[in-house]
Amino acid sequence: MGKTQKVAISPTREEDYAEWYQQVIKASDLAEHSPVRGCMVIKPWGYRLWEKIKESLDKKFKETGHENAYFPLFIPLSYLQKEAEHVEGFAKECAVVTHHKLEKSSSGELVPSGELEEPLVVRPTSEMIIGESFSRWIESYRDLPLKLNQWANIVRWEMRTRLFLRTAEILWQEGHTAHATKEEAVEETNQMLDIYVEISEKLLAIPVIKGQKSEREKFPGADTTLCFEAMMQDGKALQMGTSHFLGQNFSKAADITFTDQEGKLQHAWTTSWGVTTRLIGAIIMTHSDDNGLILPPRVASAHVVIIPFIPKNGDKESICEYCEKLKQQISSVNYHGSTLDVKVDDRDLRSGEKAWQWIKKGVPLRIEVGPKEMEANKVSLFKRTEDPKQRHELSEKEVTSKLSDILDDIQKELFARAKGRLNSQTKEINSKEEFYEYFKQKNPGFALVHYNPDHSFEEKIQQDLGVTVRCIPLEKKKEKGICPFSNQESSQRVIYAKSY
Amino acid sequence: MGKTQKVAISPTREEDYAEWYQQVIKASDLAEHSPVRGCMVIKPWGYRLWEKIKESLDKKFKETGHENAYFPLFIPLSYLQKEAEHVEGFAKECAVVTHHKLEKSSSGELVPSGELEEPLVVRPTSEMIIGESFSRWIESYRDLPLKLNQWANIVRWEMRTRLFLRTAEILWQEGHTAHATKEEAVEETNQMLDIYVEISEKLLAIPVIKGQKSEREKFPGADTTLCFEAMMQDGKALQMGTSHFLGQNFSKAADITFTDQEGKLQHAWTTSWGVTTRLIGAIIMTHSDDNGLILPPRVASAHVVIIPFIPKNGDKESICEYCEKLKQQISSVNYHGSTLDVKVDDRDLRSGEKAWQWIKKGVPLRIEVGPKEMEANKVSLFKRTEDPKQRHELSEKEVTSKLSDILDDIQKELFARAKGRLNSQTKEINSKEEFYEYFKQKNPGFALVHYNPDHSFEEKIQQDLGVTVRCIPLEKKKEKGICPFSNQESSQRVIYAKSY
Repeated sequence: MGKTQKVAISPTREEDYAEWYQQVIKASDLAEHSPVRGCMVIKPWGYRLWEKIKESLDKKFKETGHENAYFPLFIPLSYLQKEAEHVEGFAKECAVVTHHKLEKSSSGELVPSGELEEPLVVRPTSEMIIGESFSRWIESYRDLPLKLNQWANIVRWEMRTRLFLRTAEILWQEGHTAHATKEEAVEETNQMLDIYVEISEKLLAIPVIKGQKSEREKFPGADTTLCFEAMMQDGKALQMGTSHFLGQNFSKAADITFTDQEGKLQHAWTTSWGVTTRLIGAIIMTHSDDNGLILPPRVASAHVVIIPFIPKNGDKESICEYCEKLKQQISSVNYHGSTLDVKVDDRDLRSGEKAWQWIKKGVPLRIEVGPKEMEANKVSLFKRTEDPKQRHELSEKEVTSKLSDILDDIQKELFARAKGRLNSQTKEINSKEEFYEYFKQKNPGFALVHYNPDHSFEEKIQQDLGVTVRCIPLEKKKEKGICPFSNQESSQRVIYAKSY
Repeated sequence: MGKTQKVAISPTREEDYAEWYQQVIKASDLAEHSPVRGCMVIKPWGYRLWEKIKESLDKKFKETGHENAYFPLFIPLSYLQKEAEHVEGFAKECAVVTHHKLEKSSSGELVPSGELEEPLVVRPTSEMIIGESFSRWIESYRDLPLKLNQWANIVRWEMRTRLFLRTAEILWQEGHTAHATKEEAVEETNQMLDIYVEISEKLLAIPVIKGQKSEREKFPGADTTLCFEAMMQDGKALQMGTSHFLGQNFSKAADITFTDQEGKLQHAWTTSWGVTTRLIGAIIMTHSDDNGLILPPRVASAHVVIIPFIPKNGDKESICEYCEKLKQQISSVNYHGSTLDVKVDDRDLRSGEKAWQWIKKGVPLRIEVGPKEMEANKVSLFKRTEDPKQRHELSEKEVTSKLSDILDDIQKELFARAKGRLNSQTKEINSKEEFYEYFKQKNPGFALVHYNPDHSFEEKIQQDLGVTVRCIPLEKKKEKGICPFSNQESSQRVIYAKSY
């Protein structure tokens, strides 16, 4: 910023939101495009964020009785084909392994060789390959419920990719469970959605709308798909994750049967649910500003950075020592059952330049220590959510006693900002004209509109405006009305929006 | 075992070691072969073990200044080819992606479609794809050292697979670092070997020999490969992991250069190092007995199982309540900075059957509680390393105060047993005749033999006996002698053995 009040990221959100997103990622060093088509490199700052999200999710999964396991990367084509809708949903974006070695051709070039009898698809999701195991493992009602999760990479060949939002290779978790009754499976589907929502709102500070996907948008092969949708700063919806009730579709395709208590053979009821590194994209687009990334404290790659300010001919050694001592103290502060991650940046760079690097990387708190602070046993504290020059003076004691609360305040503030935006940019719309007008403006937001599932105009709306039904909210009150597109009766409003 | 003194695993180690290994895995429910050629399914009990090993390694990596990141699964063929030895080493076992979708053929069958312009190899290791990033990220000596690690899956198409020891898809970690000087890179290579050895000996309770690979056995493209080798119960060597000093070979192939302090352009010095789920194979083959798996307490999937013994017409509810209370108490016991993992097995099965299942699964401690124990506020404790019937009586108080020490004793005992075996089955051999005799007996062990690297008889020894140079030990004293095969001078004995 400096004297000219320029911001650190160019273009700004206002100028070009899509390009701003790319520049925030670049400036924060979270990730980058790799030369491998559609694949990204997740750099340490981005991967640390993913690790924190993973830890929180993994703990919740285990607390609710799920165990981790690992299944093959490759799915034989014949397995994928067992569920017709499913394979159709993924056929257009599958990486296919056809050979198992390389050989020198007559011209001396290395070429694929050793053709496989059956092509292998790199998993786009694992229902069919995990279903194969389930069909062997499950025999009796005593083997149910079976509740597993897998942390893995998947591949969906996307033609237009965007860091964290849409890439060919994706890191994710996929839960897969089998149950003796429909009720239990439905309950599981709901429970996992609730866990996702809790992590999203409490840890990522992202308010979301819980909903059900329309028939058109649900997972290929599922009975119903639940989802949670967030609003980005440009008003677009981001689908953050899904939880599918698969009914008996996949258990019939993969032959997952069990003998019930009466000795009768039954098909199991299954579910699957997943979130990906897309959650990082959601964090970026929900919280960041024109100075770069802002990380919610509960999952921040680091909570505090300490920057020594050394004047010309200043005593570098003693200031750095003081900073290291401070780091030790702050690192022992209890923050939600863990300790704080603190960095000291003692690189040979101008202090102002270092400060701006950490602002762009989104660290919630920045502490600056110069000779004055050291003498007075004080520090200068800056919050990422405030103006970069807004200084707070804290005594050494206050640093350890107050940081945890200050971080909680930042966490709350980020959630409140996003929640305010979600509320103010969501509008009830009752006529077709109003709808078209709303979505033709810049950064429109969400529209709550009456909906009758029995129609086909969704495609036209998508063509005209790039707008789709994002979800049928689970927690909105029922309310009778008329769908403005079909003039049919409706029992509930749904969310229409542009989306990522 | 029961009355007939039969053991739980058939065949025994003595009868058929290779088949015993498979049966231990099956009986302990660690993993299984999947229908996908060469790929395994890691079941929850096995994956939990991997998670514990991962946590320990990851902590050490971070403590020594490494950060995690994630690089693409696919390597364009042109990248892999940049290092000639390297690509030659892996060409015969590469899974190759050649298409990016599936389409219905004229006969209605789904077939690969959308051929890629350049085939993609599923990473067998990531030197070349990470090298591409390093070449862009590293500009100045200020950017060095760069020390990254990645937890990932790799694929090496093996024709003969064995659970955990040799599979087509492998879970592993791969560290990749770049340094300004040769000395630093060599130091890094040694440091990571030392970390592996520490984890192996302290946590997995597996004594190992630190060594260097012979020219014939080193990593394709490396200057030197360090390794650590353990002896399995059948006397064969298992290579547990490797740490490579890559010299400037890969930095030249991938063009990783930096400007040094004098402004001169230099090639960086790089290293790479990795361990895989093979460590689980090592645990199984080092510690298990004819009753199944024995898990070293420091990484055990669970430390204690509590089994309620309910007599006919007994008060099931109050015994199970007592067991749950006990579980809460034991779960809070501090064990090396963490808490104990405790399971209560209250399934509707005969108690004896349950006990045997947990013996086969290798849980270090089994606690049985019946009406007698409950009345007296006592428990019956059984150690997995002792005879299954060897009972210890502990008061409720002693359970919480003593379990941590008891587990440490088991950990020590397992290491001591393995160390004793390694020592007693390692023999110094000085003549060719003695060597051939030694390796023609059943389960021979290791031979310490003088060695001159300048010879070609290694291939003949491998053909005759299936024996190779496992490593040139780093910590054996230098000693002059004569290589019995070439009659050339030797400065050190090396380890010859059969191996996995």
